[in-house]
Amino acid sequence: MPSPLSERITTANTEALRRIGTAAPVLARVRTAREVVPALGERVLLHAGPPVTVETLCGPMRGAIIGAVMYERWAGDLGEAESLLERGKVELRCTHDSGVVGPMAGIVSGSMPVFEVRDATHGSVAYAPINEGIGAVLRFGANDGGVVTRLRWLEEVLAPALDAALVGAGGLLLVPLMARALTMGDEMHQRNVAATSLLCRAMAPALAATANSGEVMAAALRFLGENDQFFLNVAMAAAKCILNAAHDIPGSTVVTVMSRNGGEFGIRVGGLGDRWFIARAPTPVGLYFPGFVAADANPDMGDSAILEVLGLGGFAMAAAPAVAGFVGLPSAKEAPSVTRRMGEITVGRSTHFKIPALDFDGTPTGIDIRRVVRLEVTPIINTGIAHRRAGVGQIGAGVVRAPLEVFQDALKAFTAQYAAEEASAGP
Amino acid sequence: MPSPLSERITTANTEALRRIGTAAPVLARVRTAREVVPALGERVLLHAGPPVTVETLCGPMRGAIIGAVMYERWAGDLGEAESLLERGKVELRCTHDSGVVGPMAGIVSGSMPVFEVRDATHGSVAYAPINEGIGAVLRFGANDGGVVTRLRWLEEVLAPALDAALVGAGGLLLVPLMARALTMGDEMHQRNVAATSLLCRAMAPALAATANSGEVMAAALRFLGENDQFFLNVAMAAAKCILNAAHDIPGSTVVTVMSRNGGEFGIRVGGLGDRWFIARAPTPVGLYFPGFVAADANPDMGDSAILEVLGLGGFAMAAAPAVAGFVGLPSAKEAPSVTRRMGEITVGRSTHFKIPALDFDGTPTGIDIRRVVRLEVTPIINTGIAHRRAGVGQIGAGVVRAPLEVFQDALKAFTAQYAAEEASAGP
Repeated sequence: MPSPLSERITTANTEALRRIGTAAPVLARVRTAREVVPALGERVLLHAGPPVTVETLCGPMRGAIIGAVMYERWAGDLGEAESLLERGKVELRCTHDSGVVGPMAGIVSGSMPVFEVRDATHGSVAYAPINEGIGAVLRFGANDGGVVTRLRWLEEVLAPALDAALVGAGGLLLVPLMARALTMGDEMHQRNVAATSLLCRAMAPALAATANSGEVMAAALRFLGENDQFFLNVAMAAAKCILNAAHDIPGSTVVTVMSRNGGEFGIRVGGLGDRWFIARAPTPVGLYFPGFVAADANPDMGDSAILEVLGLGGFAMAAAPAVAGFVGLPSAKEAPSVTRRMGEITVGRSTHFKIPALDFDGTPTGIDIRRVVRLEVTPIINTGIAHRRAGVGQIGAGVVRAPLEVFQDALKAFTAQYAAEEASAGP
Repeated sequence: MPSPLSERITTANTEALRRIGTAAPVLARVRTAREVVPALGERVLLHAGPPVTVETLCGPMRGAIIGAVMYERWAGDLGEAESLLERGKVELRCTHDSGVVGPMAGIVSGSMPVFEVRDATHGSVAYAPINEGIGAVLRFGANDGGVVTRLRWLEEVLAPALDAALVGAGGLLLVPLMARALTMGDEMHQRNVAATSLLCRAMAPALAATANSGEVMAAALRFLGENDQFFLNVAMAAAKCILNAAHDIPGSTVVTVMSRNGGEFGIRVGGLGDRWFIARAPTPVGLYFPGFVAADANPDMGDSAILEVLGLGGFAMAAAPAVAGFVGLPSAKEAPSVTRRMGEITVGRSTHFKIPALDFDGTPTGIDIRRVVRLEVTPIINTGIAHRRAGVGQIGAGVVRAPLEVFQDALKAFTAQYAAEEASAGP
């Protein structure tokens, strides 16, 4: 006789947490996207979040697509690029369906370099593009000449240097580095200064040993030195790689993907395959750069919520009192309460990522759709804010709550699927 | 008519705090000690803390002196080196009298490279030797061949590379870097991983641009990459440089030096010139490396308490919950209480160094001998622990409280000196 469904779920979720806790992601290479994502042929782009159509594309994602078309030289100017898009000549595919995660618009084209993160325990792999810095950058929808020039430099100069260093160093184990950064004030979504500094410090000797020229090396190190969010994309690829191990576990109610396309917010669940559960994306509440206001903000966007799925970002606020203001807390002293609240909707605590201020308690890990629905406590997500118009870029940073409906819909689907399975397996 | 003494003190201490708050230390160069400390002639060494004699030298300082004699090739073997020392053929001088600070034994010889930190605001300068790493190192009294070989490598390889990079970069402003490290879990005495990583990240591009060979550069970056306490000595030189500005202010009761020679604990006070106030050094309470126990510990040693004088180290515990265990706290949540307690004996808060977990309150700065004596609350100092025998090295880390007597003695001297001044200036 089969065990009751609740026991089956407990077993599945425990297994999910065990796999997350035994993953050993390694930053192995910097590859060219089209080498590792065969789908990335001529005029094919990946985008963040659940599937989009040309008709429903939000402004910043539209801007980023146009920028990527220019970068790939599929068009000679912005007007031609936009026309290609409007005429349906650019195929758009989900990042998550190709094992890729991209922050904000998450646009990845074939020529772009991507970090390759491999899980040494479970063998899975995930990819993320290289972080471009802040301000007017592709991922926030900017697409002027400077944006494209920077993307070419990443491809032609930085990526080969980083790849040679990674190969020379035999890859870089990410969990120890990320765990340490969490003891240094990073929650690894809004704040990555510690992880970026540790990455730079870990890779600099290998860069020195493998660089073709001092000039390239100085330029590469300067780029890493000036971008405190450089590690964000590495962390995202690591999170995706780790969570791959928790996906496709029959009976699991653990969330394995949360992602947004600037219009819709979607989740995937470990026991429900690759089906998306989707609702309208909320608009972040946050702090704006001078000259911008809340009315300028695009709804929530990007694959970076994969960090909260792993228990970082908003879930790890207690580790990062310095960014408490971004999540609207009246005092840094309140940051631990956010982490504790998120602990109510997860199946356990991270065995990797521990927070000194909580006496080294692990971060809350494994969002359980049942708990979210029962308690009506939704995941809190730290995020960047893009201007709603194409071509502008980042205008602030803040926080969103995941919409409750996606968890309710997922639980309904879960109950329907597994109740049917139980019934057909009955005596 | 002169103002009453208490008003004079308030004015002087306010000025001390103002100068500390406006200092702008720059890591300018790596120089050779004998170039910048003319006293460092043949068979002259500097040591940490108040003055020592050959007869009263503690074991680890004796070990470090013998190591420095070997390093300088003043003797052919350890026995000969020891004999030189015993026969009074090595002159020993205080680091603080030469504007130098050295951790633990603090032994500095003429050939050693030293960091040069210059205060761009007040023009003062301070020096510290380069941190050698942990374990069997000179500053903890070790002196075998490996220790001397490492010192030679620092002199011949690392120092010229770092100096070229610093000159190339036009120096490195230290307050922003240190302030940032304080938001990343460092209190900068027990824990320097953030500051070291930020230093490495800041200097790596300049190293790349100025290094003579990729090999030297890789070795230099590896050394910085493997030593989380590398920044400690830079922080000490910065603290000394900043506090120079607060020294020699008539009427000030603010402590400008706390230091230990492994036998005695001494302080200097802003309004009392270069006079030492000295008591027996306490022995740290702490955590020991496997195989060592409290009975092996040497009494407190080193100039590194200059960090607590500036408001870092034990005074900044709230910034570093990860090392709460070292100061004997039952929980990381208690760390803020240590910082608050130290706030009771200081004249103000740092305008440079702020702690996110305390909603960006500044660290307690400007230890007032009057408050220490009145409240009987003595400064708490985070510290390394050396084996009491020469030649062994570091055996642990922990915490000491400064002895109350030195503050009582200083206050007596202060009262005597200034009461006499008031009387002679009277109507």
